Amino acid sequence: MAESGIDIVARVVLQQCVYARLQVKPPSLDSEAEWVEIKKGMIIYLCFFKGADSTVIPKMVNSLLNVKLSETDAGKHVSIKDLPGDVLIVPQATLGGKVKGRGMQYHSNAGKELGMELYTQFVTQCQQELAVHAPWAESGSVLRFGTYGNRQVLKIDTNGPYTHLLEF
Amino acid sequence: MAESGIDIVARVVLQQCVYARLQVKPPSLDSEAEWVEIKKGMIIYLCFFKGADSTVIPKMVNSLLNVKLSETDAGKHVSIKDLPGDVLIVPQATLGGKVKGRGMQYHSNAGKELGMELYTQFVTQCQQELAVHAPWAESGSVLRFGTYGNRQVLKIDTNGPYTHLLEF
Repeated sequence: MAESGIDIVARVVLQQCVYARLQVKPPSLDSEAEWVEIKKGMIIYLCFFKGADSTVIPKMVNSLLNVKLSETDAGKHVSIKDLPGDVLIVPQATLGGKVKGRGMQYHSNAGKELGMELYTQFVTQCQQELAVHAPWAESGSVLRFGTYGNRQVLKIDTNGPYTHLLEF
Repeated sequence: MAESGIDIVARVVLQQCVYARLQVKPPSLDSEAEWVEIKKGMIIYLCFFKGADSTVIPKMVNSLLNVKLSETDAGKHVSIKDLPGDVLIVPQATLGGKVKGRGMQYHSNAGKELGMELYTQFVTQCQQELAVHAPWAESGSVLRFGTYGNRQVLKIDTNGPYTHLLEF
Protein backbone atom coordinates (compact mmCIF):
# COMPACT_ATOMS: atom_id res chain seq x y z
CA MET A 1 0.00 0.00 0.00
CA ALA A 2 1.41 3.35 -1.02
CA GLU A 3 2.13 5.71 1.87
CA SER A 4 0.65 9.17 1.82
CA GLY A 5 2.86 11.50 -0.17
CA ILE A 6 4.39 8.80 -2.35
CA ASP A 7 3.00 8.67 -5.86
CA ILE A 8 0.86 5.62 -6.43
CA VAL A 9 1.16 3.66 -9.66
CA ALA A 10 -2.00 1.54 -9.45
CA ARG A 11 -5.40 1.79 -7.82
CA VAL A 12 -7.67 -1.17 -7.16
CA VAL A 13 -11.23 -1.43 -5.85
CA LEU A 14 -12.37 -4.84 -4.65
CA GLN A 15 -15.95 -6.01 -4.27
CA GLN A 16 -17.19 -9.39 -3.16
CA CYS A 17 -20.05 -10.96 -5.07
CA VAL A 18 -22.22 -14.04 -5.25
CA TYR A 19 -22.62 -13.58 -9.01
CA ALA A 20 -21.30 -11.21 -11.65
CA ARG A 21 -21.62 -10.92 -15.40
CA LEU A 22 -19.44 -8.76 -17.61
CA GLN A 23 -19.65 -7.91 -21.28
CA VAL A 24 -16.40 -8.70 -23.07
CA LYS A 25 -17.57 -7.95 -26.60
CA PRO A 26 -20.28 -5.48 -27.49
CA PRO A 27 -23.05 -6.46 -29.86
CA SER A 28 -22.51 -5.67 -33.52
CA LEU A 29 -24.67 -5.76 -36.60
CA ASP A 30 -23.98 -9.42 -37.21
CA SER A 31 -23.22 -10.79 -33.75
CA GLU A 32 -24.63 -10.73 -30.26
CA ALA A 33 -22.75 -9.37 -27.27
CA GLU A 34 -20.37 -11.77 -25.53
CA TRP A 35 -20.28 -12.09 -21.77
CA VAL A 36 -18.30 -13.83 -19.06
CA GLU A 37 -19.67 -14.66 -15.64
CA ILE A 38 -18.52 -15.74 -12.22
CA LYS A 39 -20.27 -17.15 -9.18
CA LYS A 40 -19.20 -16.47 -5.59
CA GLY A 41 -15.95 -14.56 -5.62
CA MET A 42 -14.18 -11.25 -5.92
CA ILE A 43 -14.30 -8.45 -8.48
CA ILE A 44 -11.03 -6.60 -9.05
CA TYR A 45 -11.45 -3.17 -10.69
CA LEU A 46 -8.06 -1.80 -11.62
CA CYS A 47 -6.35 1.23 -13.06
CA PHE A 48 -2.70 2.02 -13.71
CA PHE A 49 -1.08 5.42 -13.48
CA LYS A 50 1.76 7.06 -15.32
CA GLY A 51 5.05 5.81 -13.91
CA ALA A 52 3.77 2.26 -13.42
CA ASP A 53 5.88 -0.57 -14.78
CA SER A 54 5.82 -4.32 -14.63
CA THR A 55 7.70 -4.47 -11.32
CA VAL A 56 4.48 -3.59 -9.49
CA ILE A 57 2.50 -6.51 -10.90
CA PRO A 58 3.82 -9.36 -8.72
CA LYS A 59 3.28 -7.24 -5.62
CA MET A 60 -0.30 -6.45 -6.62
CA VAL A 61 -1.13 -10.03 -7.53
CA ASN A 62 0.35 -11.34 -4.29
CA SER A 63 -1.51 -8.80 -2.18
CA LEU A 64 -4.89 -9.07 -3.90
CA LEU A 65 -5.05 -12.85 -4.07
CA ASN A 66 -3.86 -13.33 -0.48
CA VAL A 67 -5.64 -10.61 1.45
CA LYS A 68 -8.39 -12.10 3.59
CA LEU A 69 -11.53 -10.38 2.35
CA SER A 70 -13.69 -13.28 1.20
CA GLU A 71 -16.26 -14.70 3.57
CA THR A 72 -16.75 -18.43 3.99
CA ASP A 73 -20.21 -19.87 4.60
CA ALA A 74 -19.21 -20.01 8.27
CA GLY A 75 -18.57 -16.24 8.28
CA LYS A 76 -14.78 -16.43 8.46
CA HIS A 77 -12.67 -14.19 6.21
CA VAL A 78 -10.08 -15.91 4.04
CA SER A 79 -8.26 -15.07 0.82
CA ILE A 80 -9.94 -15.61 -2.54
CA LYS A 81 -7.33 -18.33 -3.16
CA ASP A 82 -8.37 -20.18 -0.04
CA LEU A 83 -12.11 -19.54 -0.25
CA PRO A 84 -11.68 -20.80 -2.98
CA GLY A 85 -13.69 -18.44 -5.13
CA ASP A 86 -14.02 -17.02 -8.61
CA VAL A 87 -12.19 -13.88 -9.74
CA LEU A 88 -13.41 -11.23 -12.18
CA ILE A 89 -10.90 -8.62 -13.33
CA VAL A 90 -12.38 -5.39 -14.67
CA PRO A 91 -10.19 -2.72 -16.29
CA GLN A 92 -11.47 0.57 -14.89
CA ALA A 93 -9.57 3.61 -16.09
CA THR A 94 -12.13 5.90 -14.47
CA LEU A 95 -10.54 5.04 -11.10
CA GLY A 96 -7.70 7.35 -12.08
CA GLY A 97 -9.97 10.38 -12.26
CA LYS A 98 -9.48 13.54 -10.25
CA VAL A 99 -12.18 16.13 -9.70
CA LYS A 100 -11.44 19.41 -11.48
CA GLY A 101 -14.25 21.89 -11.08
CA ARG A 102 -17.39 19.95 -11.96
CA GLY A 103 -15.56 17.63 -14.33
CA MET A 104 -13.10 14.79 -14.06
CA GLN A 105 -9.56 14.72 -15.39
CA TYR A 106 -7.57 11.59 -16.10
CA HIS A 107 -4.15 13.14 -16.63
CA SER A 108 -2.43 10.74 -14.24
CA ASN A 109 -3.63 7.61 -16.02
CA ALA A 110 -1.17 5.40 -17.82
CA GLY A 111 -1.39 5.76 -21.59
CA LYS A 112 -3.43 3.21 -23.49
CA GLU A 113 -0.49 1.10 -24.67
CA LEU A 114 1.18 0.90 -21.25
CA GLY A 115 -2.16 0.38 -19.51
CA MET A 116 -3.06 -2.52 -21.79
CA GLU A 117 0.36 -4.12 -21.39
CA LEU A 118 0.21 -3.94 -17.59
CA TYR A 119 -3.39 -5.15 -17.56
CA THR A 120 -2.44 -8.18 -19.65
CA GLN A 121 0.49 -8.96 -17.36
CA PHE A 122 -1.75 -8.63 -14.31
CA VAL A 123 -4.32 -11.07 -15.72
CA THR A 124 -1.61 -13.56 -16.72
CA GLN A 125 0.12 -13.47 -13.37
CA CYS A 126 -3.18 -13.87 -11.49
CA GLN A 127 -3.93 -16.93 -13.62
CA GLN A 128 -0.47 -18.35 -12.90
CA GLU A 129 -0.64 -17.76 -9.17
CA LEU A 130 -4.10 -19.29 -8.90
CA ALA A 131 -3.21 -22.29 -11.06
CA VAL A 132 -0.40 -23.38 -8.74
CA HIS A 133 -2.49 -23.08 -5.57
CA ALA A 134 -4.05 -26.53 -5.35
CA PRO A 135 -7.12 -25.66 -3.24
CA TRP A 136 -8.09 -23.09 -5.86
CA ALA A 137 -7.05 -25.00 -8.97
CA GLU A 138 -8.82 -28.19 -7.89
CA SER A 139 -12.01 -26.43 -6.84
CA GLY A 140 -13.27 -25.68 -10.31
CA SER A 141 -13.13 -21.95 -9.57
CA VAL A 142 -12.62 -19.66 -12.55
CA LEU A 143 -10.85 -16.42 -13.38
CA ARG A 144 -12.55 -14.19 -15.93
CA PHE A 145 -11.57 -10.74 -17.17
CA GLY A 146 -12.85 -7.84 -19.17
CA THR A 147 -11.59 -6.47 -22.45
CA TYR A 148 -9.25 -3.53 -21.96
CA GLY A 149 -10.64 -0.34 -23.48
CA ASN A 150 -14.22 -1.57 -23.73
CA ARG A 151 -17.21 -0.25 -21.86
CA GLN A 152 -17.45 -2.64 -18.89
CA VAL A 153 -21.14 -3.47 -18.96
CA LEU A 154 -21.48 -5.23 -15.62
CA LYS A 155 -24.11 -6.78 -13.42
CA ILE A 156 -23.34 -7.87 -9.89
CA ASP A 157 -25.24 -9.57 -7.11
CA THR A 158 -23.75 -9.44 -3.62
CA ASN A 159 -24.31 -10.51 -0.07
CA GLY A 160 -22.62 -7.22 0.83
CA PRO A 161 -20.03 -5.81 -1.60
CA TYR A 162 -17.58 -5.22 1.25
CA THR A 163 -15.87 -2.61 -0.94
CA HIS A 164 -12.14 -2.04 -0.36
CA LEU A 165 -9.59 0.32 -1.86
CA LEU A 166 -5.96 -0.72 -2.33
CA GLU A 167 -3.25 1.44 -3.81
CA PHE A 168 0.22 0.40 -4.93
CA MET B 1 -10.34 16.40 -3.04
CA ALA B 2 -7.71 15.88 -0.37
CA GLU B 3 -4.15 16.59 -1.48
CA SER B 4 -1.52 13.96 -1.00
CA GLY B 5 -0.08 14.17 2.51
CA ILE B 6 -3.15 15.80 4.07
CA ASP B 7 -5.27 13.45 6.12
CA ILE B 8 -8.55 12.67 4.49
CA VAL B 9 -11.75 12.58 6.53
CA ALA B 10 -14.08 10.83 4.10
CA ARG B 11 -13.75 8.40 1.21
CA VAL B 12 -16.38 7.88 -1.46
CA VAL B 13 -16.68 5.42 -4.33
CA LEU B 14 -19.22 6.23 -7.03
CA GLN B 15 -20.75 3.78 -9.49
CA GLN B 16 -23.31 4.47 -12.16
CA CYS B 17 -26.17 1.99 -12.57
CA VAL B 18 -29.31 1.33 -14.54
CA TYR B 19 -30.83 -0.50 -11.57
CA ALA B 20 -29.85 -1.24 -7.99
CA ARG B 21 -31.50 -2.93 -5.05
CA LEU B 22 -30.30 -2.70 -1.46
CA GLN B 23 -31.44 -4.51 1.67
CA VAL B 24 -32.31 -2.03 4.41
CA LYS B 25 -33.64 -4.54 6.94
CA PRO B 26 -32.50 -8.15 7.17
CA PRO B 27 -35.07 -10.91 7.37
CA SER B 28 -36.06 -12.05 10.85
CA LEU B 29 -38.09 -14.94 12.23
CA ASP B 30 -41.35 -13.09 11.80
CA SER B 31 -40.66 -10.70 8.91
CA GLU B 32 -39.19 -10.71 5.46
CA ALA B 33 -36.20 -8.61 4.45
CA GLU B 34 -36.93 -5.03 3.39
CA TRP B 35 -35.34 -3.50 0.30
CA VAL B 36 -35.09 -0.20 -1.50
CA GLU B 37 -34.38 0.14 -5.18
CA ILE B 38 -33.41 2.73 -7.74
CA LYS B 39 -33.47 2.88 -11.52
CA LYS B 40 -30.93 4.74 -13.65
CA GLY B 41 -28.66 6.71 -11.38
CA MET B 42 -25.66 6.81 -9.10
CA ILE B 43 -24.56 4.70 -6.16
CA ILE B 44 -22.60 6.55 -3.46
CA TYR B 45 -20.58 4.26 -1.17
CA LEU B 46 -19.19 6.27 1.72
CA CYS B 47 -16.99 6.01 4.75
CA PHE B 48 -15.90 8.57 7.33
CA PHE B 49 -12.56 8.65 9.10
CA LYS B 50 -11.51 9.77 12.56
CA GLY B 51 -11.22 13.54 12.59
CA ALA B 52 -14.25 14.05 10.34
CA ASP B 53 -16.89 16.51 11.49
CA SER B 54 -20.02 18.00 10.04
CA THR B 55 -18.16 20.81 8.25
CA VAL B 56 -17.16 18.37 5.51
CA ILE B 57 -20.72 17.34 4.67
CA PRO B 58 -21.81 20.37 2.57
CA LYS B 59 -18.60 20.14 0.56
CA MET B 60 -19.14 16.43 -0.11
CA VAL B 61 -22.79 16.86 -1.03
CA ASN B 62 -22.01 19.74 -3.35
CA SER B 63 -19.21 17.87 -5.08
CA LEU B 64 -20.95 14.51 -5.45
CA LEU B 65 -24.27 15.85 -6.69
CA ASN B 66 -22.69 18.28 -9.15
CA VAL B 67 -19.79 16.36 -10.62
CA LYS B 68 -20.54 15.36 -14.20
CA LEU B 69 -20.34 11.56 -14.15
CA SER B 70 -23.79 10.49 -15.28
CA GLU B 71 -24.35 9.69 -18.92
CA THR B 72 -27.40 10.91 -20.80
CA ASP B 73 -29.02 8.76 -23.47
CA ALA B 74 -27.15 10.93 -25.97
CA GLY B 75 -23.81 9.98 -24.37
CA LYS B 76 -23.12 13.33 -22.71
CA HIS B 77 -21.90 13.45 -19.10
CA VAL B 78 -23.90 15.57 -16.71
CA SER B 79 -24.41 15.68 -12.95
CA ILE B 80 -26.84 13.31 -11.27
CA LYS B 81 -28.94 16.40 -10.43
CA ASP B 82 -29.19 17.34 -14.08
CA LEU B 83 -29.50 13.84 -15.54
CA PRO B 84 -31.81 13.77 -13.56
CA GLY B 85 -31.28 10.37 -12.00
CA ASP B 86 -31.83 8.32 -8.87
CA VAL B 87 -29.36 8.22 -6.00
CA LEU B 88 -28.56 5.29 -3.72
CA ILE B 89 -26.40 5.98 -0.66
CA VAL B 90 -24.61 2.98 0.80
CA PRO B 91 -22.68 3.20 4.08
CA GLN B 92 -19.47 1.29 3.48
CA ALA B 93 -17.09 1.28 6.42
CA THR B 94 -14.86 -1.26 4.68
CA LEU B 95 -13.63 1.59 2.45
CA GLY B 96 -11.58 2.74 5.43
CA GLY B 97 -9.55 -0.47 5.51
CA LYS B 98 -5.78 -0.60 5.22
CA VAL B 99 -3.86 -3.75 4.36
CA LYS B 100 -1.80 -5.03 7.29
CA GLY B 101 -0.04 -8.29 6.46
CA ARG B 102 -2.76 -10.47 4.93
CA GLY B 103 -5.51 -8.80 6.93
CA MET B 104 -7.33 -5.49 6.95
CA GLN B 105 -7.32 -2.93 9.71
CA TYR B 106 -9.92 -0.22 10.17
CA HIS B 107 -8.18 1.87 12.81
CA SER B 108 -8.69 5.12 10.89
CA ASN B 109 -12.46 4.73 10.64
CA ALA B 110 -14.72 7.10 12.53
CA GLY B 111 -16.30 5.45 15.56
CA LYS B 112 -19.80 4.08 15.22
CA GLU B 113 -21.59 7.01 16.87
CA LEU B 114 -19.76 9.70 14.87
CA GLY B 115 -20.02 7.65 11.67
CA MET B 116 -23.76 7.27 12.05
CA GLU B 117 -24.25 10.96 12.86
CA LEU B 118 -22.28 12.09 9.78
CA TYR B 119 -24.00 9.51 7.59
CA THR B 120 -27.39 10.80 8.69
CA GLN B 121 -26.36 14.39 8.01
CA PHE B 122 -25.05 13.41 4.60
CA VAL B 123 -28.31 11.72 3.62
CA THR B 124 -30.38 14.66 4.89
CA GLN B 125 -28.31 17.27 3.06
CA CYS B 126 -28.41 15.26 -0.18
CA GLN B 127 -32.19 15.11 0.10
CA GLN B 128 -32.36 18.86 0.73
CA GLU B 129 -30.05 19.77 -2.16
CA LEU B 130 -31.92 17.54 -4.61
CA ALA B 131 -35.33 18.74 -3.46
CA VAL B 132 -34.57 22.37 -4.31
CA HIS B 133 -33.20 21.56 -7.77
CA ALA B 134 -36.32 21.71 -9.91
CA PRO B 135 -35.15 19.48 -12.79
CA TRP B 136 -34.46 16.71 -10.28
CA ALA B 137 -37.38 17.28 -7.94
CA GLU B 138 -39.91 17.44 -10.78
CA SER B 139 -38.56 14.38 -12.57
CA GLY B 140 -39.86 11.82 -10.13
CA SER B 141 -36.31 10.71 -9.38
CA VAL B 142 -35.73 9.19 -5.96
CA LEU B 143 -33.03 9.11 -3.31
CA ARG B 144 -32.72 5.89 -1.33
CA PHE B 145 -30.20 4.93 1.34
CA GLY B 146 -28.96 1.98 3.32
CA THR B 147 -29.17 1.38 7.04
CA TYR B 148 -25.96 2.36 8.81
CA GLY B 149 -24.28 -0.61 10.47
CA ASN B 150 -26.17 -3.26 8.47
CA ARG B 151 -24.72 -5.68 5.97
CA GLN B 152 -25.34 -3.90 2.65
CA VAL B 153 -26.82 -6.72 0.60
CA LEU B 154 -26.76 -5.15 -2.84
CA LYS B 155 -27.51 -6.01 -6.42
CA ILE B 156 -26.56 -3.70 -9.26
CA ASP B 157 -27.00 -3.67 -12.98
CA THR B 158 -24.91 -1.24 -15.01
CA ASN B 159 -24.18 -0.05 -18.48
CA GLY B 160 -20.59 0.36 -17.26
CA PRO B 161 -20.08 1.18 -13.56
CA TYR B 162 -17.70 3.99 -14.43
CA THR B 163 -16.22 3.65 -10.93
CA HIS B 164 -14.70 6.78 -9.38
CA LEU B 165 -12.93 7.49 -6.12
CA LEU B 166 -13.31 10.82 -4.33
CA GLU B 167 -11.66 11.75 -1.08
CA PHE B 168 -12.36 14.73 1.16
